[in-house]
Amino acid sequence: MTFIRALLLIAAGSCLLLAQSSRETKTEAAPANSAAQIAELVLANHILTMNGVLDAYGHVSVRSARNPNHFYLARHIPAGTVTAADVIEYDLDSKQVGGNPGTGYTERFIHGEIYRARPDVMAVVHCHSPEVIPFTVTGVPLRPLIHMAAFLGGPIPVFEIRDSAGITDMLIRDAALGRALAKTLGNNTAALLRGHGAVVVAPSLHVVAGRSYYMSVNAKAQQQAIQMGAGKVTYLDPGEAQKALPQDGYERSWQLWKQQVAAK
Amino acid sequence: MTFIRALLLIAAGSCLLLAQSSRETKTEAAPANSAAQIAELVLANHILTMNGVLDAYGHVSVRSARNPNHFYLARHIPAGTVTAADVIEYDLDSKQVGGNPGTGYTERFIHGEIYRARPDVMAVVHCHSPEVIPFTVTGVPLRPLIHMAAFLGGPIPVFEIRDSAGITDMLIRDAALGRALAKTLGNNTAALLRGHGAVVVAPSLHVVAGRSYYMSVNAKAQQQAIQMGAGKVTYLDPGEAQKALPQDGYERSWQLWKQQVAAK
Amino acid sequence: MTFIRALLLIAAGSCLLLAQSSRETKTEAAPANSAAQIAELVLANHILTMNGVLDAYGHVSVRSARNPNHFYLARHIPAGTVTAADVIEYDLDSKQVGGNPGTGYTERFIHGEIYRARPDVMAVVHCHSPEVIPFTVTGVPLRPLIHMAAFLGGPIPVFEIRDSAGITDMLIRDAALGRALAKTLGNNTAALLRGHGAVVVAPSLHVVAGRSYYMSVNAKAQQQAIQMGAGKVTYLDPGEAQKALPQDGYERSWQLWKQQVAAK
Amino acid sequence: MTFIRALLLIAAGSCLLLAQSSRETKTEAAPANSAAQIAELVLANHILTMNGVLDAYGHVSVRSARNPNHFYLARHIPAGTVTAADVIEYDLDSKQVGGNPGTGYTERFIHGEIYRARPDVMAVVHCHSPEVIPFTVTGVPLRPLIHMAAFLGGPIPVFEIRDSAGITDMLIRDAALGRALAKTLGNNTAALLRGHGAVVVAPSLHVVAGRSYYMSVNAKAQQQAIQMGAGKVTYLDPGEAQKALPQDGYERSWQLWKQQVAAK
Repeated sequence: MTFIRALLLIAAGSCLLLAQSSRETKTEAAPANSAAQIAELVLANHILTMNGVLDAYGHVSVRSARNPNHFYLARHIPAGTVTAADVIEYDLDSKQVGGNPGTGYTERFIHGEIYRARPDVMAVVHCHSPEVIPFTVTGVPLRPLIHMAAFLGGPIPVFEIRDSAGITDMLIRDAALGRALAKTLGNNTAALLRGHGAVVVAPSLHVVAGRSYYMSVNAKAQQQAIQMGAGKVTYLDPGEAQKALPQDGYERSWQLWKQQVAAK
Repeated sequence: MTFIRALLLIAAGSCLLLAQSSRETKTEAAPANSAAQIAELVLANHILTMNGVLDAYGHVSVRSARNPNHFYLARHIPAGTVTAADVIEYDLDSKQVGGNPGTGYTERFIHGEIYRARPDVMAVVHCHSPEVIPFTVTGVPLRPLIHMAAFLGGPIPVFEIRDSAGITDMLIRDAALGRALAKTLGNNTAALLRGHGAVVVAPSLHVVAGRSYYMSVNAKAQQQAIQMGAGKVTYLDPGEAQKALPQDGYERSWQLWKQQVAAK
Repeated sequence: MTFIRALLLIAAGSCLLLAQSSRETKTEAAPANSAAQIAELVLANHILTMNGVLDAYGHVSVRSARNPNHFYLARHIPAGTVTAADVIEYDLDSKQVGGNPGTGYTERFIHGEIYRARPDVMAVVHCHSPEVIPFTVTGVPLRPLIHMAAFLGGPIPVFEIRDSAGITDMLIRDAALGRALAKTLGNNTAALLRGHGAVVVAPSLHVVAGRSYYMSVNAKAQQQAIQMGAGKVTYLDPGEAQKALPQDGYERSWQLWKQQVAAK
Repeated sequence: MTFIRALLLIAAGSCLLLAQSSRETKTEAAPANSAAQIAELVLANHILTMNGVLDAYGHVSVRSARNPNHFYLARHIPAGTVTAADVIEYDLDSKQVGGNPGTGYTERFIHGEIYRARPDVMAVVHCHSPEVIPFTVTGVPLRPLIHMAAFLGGPIPVFEIRDSAGITDMLIRDAALGRALAKTLGNNTAALLRGHGAVVVAPSLHVVAGRSYYMSVNAKAQQQAIQMGAGKVTYLDPGEAQKALPQDGYERSWQLWKQQVAAK
């Protein structure tokens, strides 16, 4: 009997350990299998819709782990409705090379040209977050104010499409415009688009999701601080922006949002 | 066996294609059948309540596809509670000509007179969106700031009811007031009502739903930009406002909201 | 068979009429039966919690239809948790005279003294709505800006408790303070309490619910208008505030909120 | 029969009394049993996530009732996902001494050092509430404006990490930084962290939950008042801040939030 009790205790303890370690906020390795990557991309679409980053028109992509000259991006449907069957595989010319046939987002060139220009970037978000819009139209630079947005680094560049292409419908609808935007982005983690929104880049889907969310939190807090402080605002020291970078890969946010999406 | 496997693969692929194409964000043709139009109108009532455009007092209508001198509008109940049995058919004098008998909205004349004055308009929203109110009472013009609100065109006219009728209860309660409002609207896509709200017009229910929502997004962003930018704000160039117009008929927004309403 | 078909048609039509008329936004007569009044009060507690007017500390009461010298108010629990078993019957001295025994809200004197001073008032809300707080501490008067808040009439009085009782814990914890507040309220439809919140009064529960909600909507819009308009804001003309009063008894709002509470 | 009816009435009345008294907003004694304390801590994690105080990165702890030199705090997972199996027992050096083995929050030293410096503190929250951020970066002091935030006492101190440790990643990642923060906190009920968030302390979990929530409400209202009032704002008199303190231990808020968490 004692032996059985001991076995039961050991079993119970092991179960607890297993349950616990499965919820450890360890940095998940980016999936190498395309089905796994596509599943993560679908989840990212839903997470970013739920936490307010993506409206019906924004999008998120991930560079293929099998082929760094390809990336995955959904068809031109609302991010909140994306399933695995909607994911298209593109080459860096933003031409479809895999996945179910479908019409892509008009602005898929945002993703293709950024992946081409930035070998370090593994995931890209294009969003219309209302919180950043005032920073796209006033000349006031969006800068890191809170430690969770340290990744912004310094003032974020603003892409003014008229400098590249004069009067347009304001969409990044071809490779030339995509290259112009990528040039404005340079080595930054984000860029704003005047009267339009933003792009955010990162080394993984989890990180790009966290960065997009906290960019909006920073923007809203910065605007309030500017108004209340009559312009006298303390931003992150450049050294702090550097050091605060490797938070935890925003893994904890991803785990919380993943649970919240599943609970809906 | 190989033959059967092949058949199964073909069947699976076909199902995927069918599922995918049914979710293509193609521009849905406006329904010509009155039952279909009424069903879409009911859905519009619920979508616009869910996304915050309509409170218990706002309303949305659609011009009849069978008879351009008629339009459909619910009885005087909250938009969020409308069913097909609540829809009334009106002539352009805003007199009931069909549907279950019922008391109409006091302000049904907003719809009748706009349909009369604007043969191009197929759907009308009257809302009390709080975000636009500051633009109705300060003389600051609501103008397109974001590409999703390019439809605003230029500064939106403001209807001051005292110019037409002196001191009133501020409701558009007869044809004369409806005509005065329609005159202020002119050829614009929207007009504001001082201390009251707005009207938004469009070539379809899907478009009027998207326009009403993004008008509020624009209003809120514009107000924040004006305050943060100390008045120095970059608006859409008139040419951009023209070119950015045919977004996608706001079809993608409609699909997302339709899914969200169904999930409630 | 024709006779049966006719009967079926008549039956179907009658059902539709019945269903429709039961959802007509007619002004519901205030219930005369105490159980019915208590049920309405419980619903008001839940509606006002759901629509953001009442936090865990606010409360709402209704004058007894059987005895105008009595009123109903819940025990000192969060409004969102109130049931019929929690409702206490008070006299105008805010002493319990009926209902299950229980500890009342410390500030029940707000209700008792207002019912005593205002024979026209049948329902009272005391709330901590954050939107009105800035108007209680800046000297900027809360005034009707939108037609849905016409009931405010003119600038709303602000009760400064230090004028009555010096340094206190800021609660209306006895009849003397209740009388002082009622005096500040005078014949107005609402009064603000400095650094605390507001009281709103009305001829019925449905109206006090609508007034409380739209007071907050007005406050938020007014604050934004004041900031954007650099002080130049157009308020309702006094005549408009008078005429816009009998909206519909806020019956349409009540019906919407009642449906939303039931759906939770 | 009459006797049976009488018995039934007595039984019914007793049941009502029992039901009522079980929902009396009496001040619950802090649980002395560790399992009970851990259960309350888990609930606090979920309440504070639901009411917006804690994002994926904030945390809440409670001093052990069995051993005042120990405290309970979850592993480094999002507060909204915490279960009893995730709670760790720490000593005042923030070293694990009990509970399932796990990696703790990097900033557990916030809790350990505050418990060491403040024998009166039984619960601690560390949050990133966006509403307080502007007060951490503008030099404008957060002060009690509303009676529900009287606990703030007076202007809240701001911890500037560069004064202690120069350029860092801005986290309180060791005992030295924890001591520096505790020194800034002094005998206050809260302290702000520049560009980061806040800590709030209290004699119990229920009180620290209510204080954290109403600190954010106060911050938002204060910011709006400062902007609208052109700087002329009436704050709580110091005497009022003292007297308004023993509200009800925020017990009513806790009961409401507990019910709302259970209903999700």
